[in-house]
Amino acid sequence: MTTTAPDWRISEWLNTSQPSSLLQLRGKVVLVEAFQMLCPGCVSDGLPQAQRVHDMFGHDDVAVVGLHSVFEHHAAQTLTALTAFLHEYRISFPVGVDMPGAADGIPQTMAAYQMRGTPTLVLIDRQGRRRFQHFGHVPDLRLGAEIMALVSEAPAAATASTNAADQPTGVCTAAGCELPAAQ
Amino acid sequence: MTTTAPDWRISEWLNTSQPSSLLQLRGKVVLVEAFQMLCPGCVSDGLPQAQRVHDMFGHDDVAVVGLHSVFEHHAAQTLTALTAFLHEYRISFPVGVDMPGAADGIPQTMAAYQMRGTPTLVLIDRQGRRRFQHFGHVPDLRLGAEIMALVSEAPAAATASTNAADQPTGVCTAAGCELPAAQ
Amino acid sequence: MTTTAPDWRISEWLNTSQPSSLLQLRGKVVLVEAFQMLCPGCVSDGLPQAQRVHDMFGHDDVAVVGLHSVFEHHAAQTLTALTAFLHEYRISFPVGVDMPGAADGIPQTMAAYQMRGTPTLVLIDRQGRRRFQHFGHVPDLRLGAEIMALVSEAPAAATASTNAADQPTGVCTAAGCELPAAQ
Amino acid sequence: MTTTAPDWRISEWLNTSQPSSLLQLRGKVVLVEAFQMLCPGCVSDGLPQAQRVHDMFGHDDVAVVGLHSVFEHHAAQTLTALTAFLHEYRISFPVGVDMPGAADGIPQTMAAYQMRGTPTLVLIDRQGRRRFQHFGHVPDLRLGAEIMALVSEAPAAATASTNAADQPTGVCTAAGCELPAAQ
Repeated sequence: MTTTAPDWRISEWLNTSQPSSLLQLRGKVVLVEAFQMLCPGCVSDGLPQAQRVHDMFGHDDVAVVGLHSVFEHHAAQTLTALTAFLHEYRISFPVGVDMPGAADGIPQTMAAYQMRGTPTLVLIDRQGRRRFQHFGHVPDLRLGAEIMALVSEAPAAATASTNAADQPTGVCTAAGCELPAAQ
Repeated sequence: MTTTAPDWRISEWLNTSQPSSLLQLRGKVVLVEAFQMLCPGCVSDGLPQAQRVHDMFGHDDVAVVGLHSVFEHHAAQTLTALTAFLHEYRISFPVGVDMPGAADGIPQTMAAYQMRGTPTLVLIDRQGRRRFQHFGHVPDLRLGAEIMALVSEAPAAATASTNAADQPTGVCTAAGCELPAAQ
Repeated sequence: MTTTAPDWRISEWLNTSQPSSLLQLRGKVVLVEAFQMLCPGCVSDGLPQAQRVHDMFGHDDVAVVGLHSVFEHHAAQTLTALTAFLHEYRISFPVGVDMPGAADGIPQTMAAYQMRGTPTLVLIDRQGRRRFQHFGHVPDLRLGAEIMALVSEAPAAATASTNAADQPTGVCTAAGCELPAAQ
Repeated sequence: MTTTAPDWRISEWLNTSQPSSLLQLRGKVVLVEAFQMLCPGCVSDGLPQAQRVHDMFGHDDVAVVGLHSVFEHHAAQTLTALTAFLHEYRISFPVGVDMPGAADGIPQTMAAYQMRGTPTLVLIDRQGRRRFQHFGHVPDLRLGAEIMALVSEAPAAATASTNAADQPTGVCTAAGCELPAAQ
């Protein structure tokens, strides 16, 4: 996971008038929270946690981006519904709608990151490399540490030390919405 | 609140093939949970509590009925979206869609009960009389007691003693979705 | 469990200047919360719940009594320590120190009730009969219902209907301090 | 707070056969959790959090030390009682009993650090300098970040950058046991 993270593919943005590509965020640590508005674990756990990160860390250091990666209930989780949902749940960070995929219904960014379901949390370092990815619950204590490990890296110095915070893709430990086993 | 409770006005039922009127439930204690699927306090608090009541009390004594009383975000909180929501949140009791109202957007049952917003919990006794109504959070300890007070009433004996568990309409003590002040 | 509950045997009382025997409380529903001040499940769960009952129900109907039933760490859980503990944790209902037992270290009231450990919650009806006993966690929704079922019984009418809320001794479902298996 | 942290003054150690001075821990980040066994906020919040840090971070990088700083209820919070408490609450990191103070009852380490009460959390960097001190609740997300900021510092490189994670003494935001106002 130390190669450059694939950019997201977004059909619509909410909560921002100036959507950013990953390349434009180069130099910051990026937290991507992939979710579905009807995924209980995302609503009770993943999204409030992402909001806490957005509220606590300086935006020059850490950028939080939501990714609405719908792989089920497409007719229910529409752009209109998502807009109302973000308003009611007081989500203030930018959220992109993951571009619908081909016949299998898996949206494109989700597929590019080989996510197992929602919620999935991804951390990308200042140089644009994916360093952490986890499906399900991540304890706050660990997430704070993982983020700060990346924040503490100087953009240049980071090149040489990629293994410290490197994490294998997590095993599901919380009530997440896992993709079909065929995946 | 000791007069006969107004019957609900429902456009669609979910989670049941045999929808009941209040009259048909006469003889049981009825818990009505009025909610909106995009109301955070309903999702985190009111609906899980109603499900606990449904799971704990015998269905011969207590009938739990959900009421989807949409007064905002009408385009988002559709029947399709509600169906997906109930599935994902494992809500198993019958849910009726409160009949849309006139120009003000307040659905008809909500208006008939003069509810202040969602979540609102209503208890109706074995004789069909409204005995408890509260907007916002109700502690489990109190709800268990309120329900059992009504369950303990014999259908006949109840006629004479209506004031014991009678409760004034509650003041909002939790993060609920209140109707506009004009109401 | 429909025979008369054994009276408690207490060496010291705290939080009251007028300690009551069970006989003196006849006519009220009595909740006995047996605990140890160094039992984590008692501190986080059982005692706060007993305090909620004390705060919510009318004291003419329901009497809450704590029972400090020490069967381990006798040198740590002294009367001095208990006094400080009750003060810091804002426990306001009467608490009796369960009379030390014989060689096995099980205090006398605990033994008389054949409790399995702490926390144990006991409900005694208006006629002095034990109707509910549970070791470990009791959900608030259920406890509210169990209490109100007993409150709703008229002192006289209760004689004939003893089986409605009768409960077998519970299985441990929470982090309680169980007595040694030999018990 | 960038001067060398005062060493602790301890009368007894528990959970360790090899007590360490701060000097001996030089090179590691040190978390000091000052508590009292009868302080509710310590029991429900501070101590479980310190245990999570002990469980999550590598012991070559982070040393967690408990400090039993008793300033009230001296007769209740004895060494015997503390020993039983640590056993029942499954606290596994070393705990030192803060040396009793003079006439005012404030123990010596607590006084040297000018703590306001319990729980107080202190972070000391790899070079032995106090960098963070907070009375009351610290969110896990922030604590994880504060610890990792110090862990990420090389022992030498740290000399030049002391202000990044420097924190003023916190204002009380949780149910802690504050020292008398005269302090």
